[in-house]
Amino acid sequence: MKIDQEAHTSHISQKFNEELEEIRSQLLEMGGLVEKQVQDAVDSLVDGDTRLASEVRKTDKTVNQLQLEIDEVCTHILARRQPAASDLRLVLAVIRATSDLERIGDEASKIAKATLRLAEEGTSPRGYIEARHLGNHVRQMVKDALNAFARFDTPQALAVLREDDKVDLEYRSATRALITFMMEDPRSISQVMNIMWVLRSLERVGDHASNLAEYVIYLVEGEDVRYTKPDKIEQVLQHDDEEDQKGSST
Amino acid sequence: MKIDQEAHTSHISQKFNEELEEIRSQLLEMGGLVEKQVQDAVDSLVDGDTRLASEVRKTDKTVNQLQLEIDEVCTHILARRQPAASDLRLVLAVIRATSDLERIGDEASKIAKATLRLAEEGTSPRGYIEARHLGNHVRQMVKDALNAFARFDTPQALAVLREDDKVDLEYRSATRALITFMMEDPRSISQVMNIMWVLRSLERVGDHASNLAEYVIYLVEGEDVRYTKPDKIEQVLQHDDEEDQKGSST
Repeated sequence: MKIDQEAHTSHISQKFNEELEEIRSQLLEMGGLVEKQVQDAVDSLVDGDTRLASEVRKTDKTVNQLQLEIDEVCTHILARRQPAASDLRLVLAVIRATSDLERIGDEASKIAKATLRLAEEGTSPRGYIEARHLGNHVRQMVKDALNAFARFDTPQALAVLREDDKVDLEYRSATRALITFMMEDPRSISQVMNIMWVLRSLERVGDHASNLAEYVIYLVEGEDVRYTKPDKIEQVLQHDDEEDQKGSST
Repeated sequence: MKIDQEAHTSHISQKFNEELEEIRSQLLEMGGLVEKQVQDAVDSLVDGDTRLASEVRKTDKTVNQLQLEIDEVCTHILARRQPAASDLRLVLAVIRATSDLERIGDEASKIAKATLRLAEEGTSPRGYIEARHLGNHVRQMVKDALNAFARFDTPQALAVLREDDKVDLEYRSATRALITFMMEDPRSISQVMNIMWVLRSLERVGDHASNLAEYVIYLVEGEDVRYTKPDKIEQVLQHDDEEDQKGSST
């Protein structure tokens, strides 16, 4: 059930090939833009850069527009090309992935909004280091998930899924610290709450990156691994490798 | 570009009809379950009912499983039936809708988790009334969106979209009140924060209900109205009605 880039070049219709390649590269382009949105949003927060925050909010419209465009191309492919097997999985994976990328864009936009609110209300006495740290972590997950998509790389997708537990731990430890701080300094609650929402948004970005990684495994292996634990997924991948080796030795 | 239930009965293949009817009814079944999850989660919170909360968390697995099953049937329909036009839109709308329903289920599960945490840490001195109120509001949105789906009812879908602004206002007013309360009574911050996350989850449920409503309009009208303001959507619907009347009078 494995596919690779070569498999996609064996189509009778050259035009069809180009269309499939097109949605894949459009998705990666959208992904690159969204990854930058997360980076810029966290930068704007940490640096108190309202100009950058406004830019992030403006760019969110471009991200939404990209989703609509890619989805439309996918719908056309489904209607006219009637793809099957791995081609169909690619189209479905792209449709699902645009939805997660768009939601990552939304979270970046919410973070930028927090930057703007904090510029009005006064900065938070705490939480920027935690936001920077968690931000770097989940941005890397998004990047790795997109690389896994670009290279049909299931081990990398699995690695992204394993990161999510660490992100959740980091998130919980950061919010606990901020709650303790708010109890000691209640006058800063309103400001610190802005950071709390930012941390929540970043944690969600990690969830969406995990979803992207799951689609890569679906795309390559034909297995829907949503709600499957990473250790179980690893078994599935190994089993598949063994089958492949058996296949090639006979 | 309009479809109605009759249109779906004119297929050459009776089996294909049955399959389309099947995914639609499975989706509505999943929707009913998810709607109940939201209700039960909020009930468990307000009544401090940990048994009910545990049930909600257990049922979340069933919701996830339903999503996988419906998505698999949809994929099979795409691969074997190669649907076009309104049939294709139905399948795509169902795939998108299962994703939002599943995420509503996740939010219900998070609310149930808050119930369990509050049972351990002690109840919050504030916020239950707000959670009940917001919970009723968004649950009604989910219900209305599902009814719109069941009846291909675009005016009802539009009404759901209009509710979302009200939900956002209600959410913001409730969180502001809780922030003020925490500043006055910092010892309760940890408990009140649990309610803050619940309100956030409920606000997200409203967003997902809006997404469902958008899919109904896409399904019936063939127009992708994501990121379109309700007033603009209303114009699209009216324009479509006028076209229909012109069409029938010639």
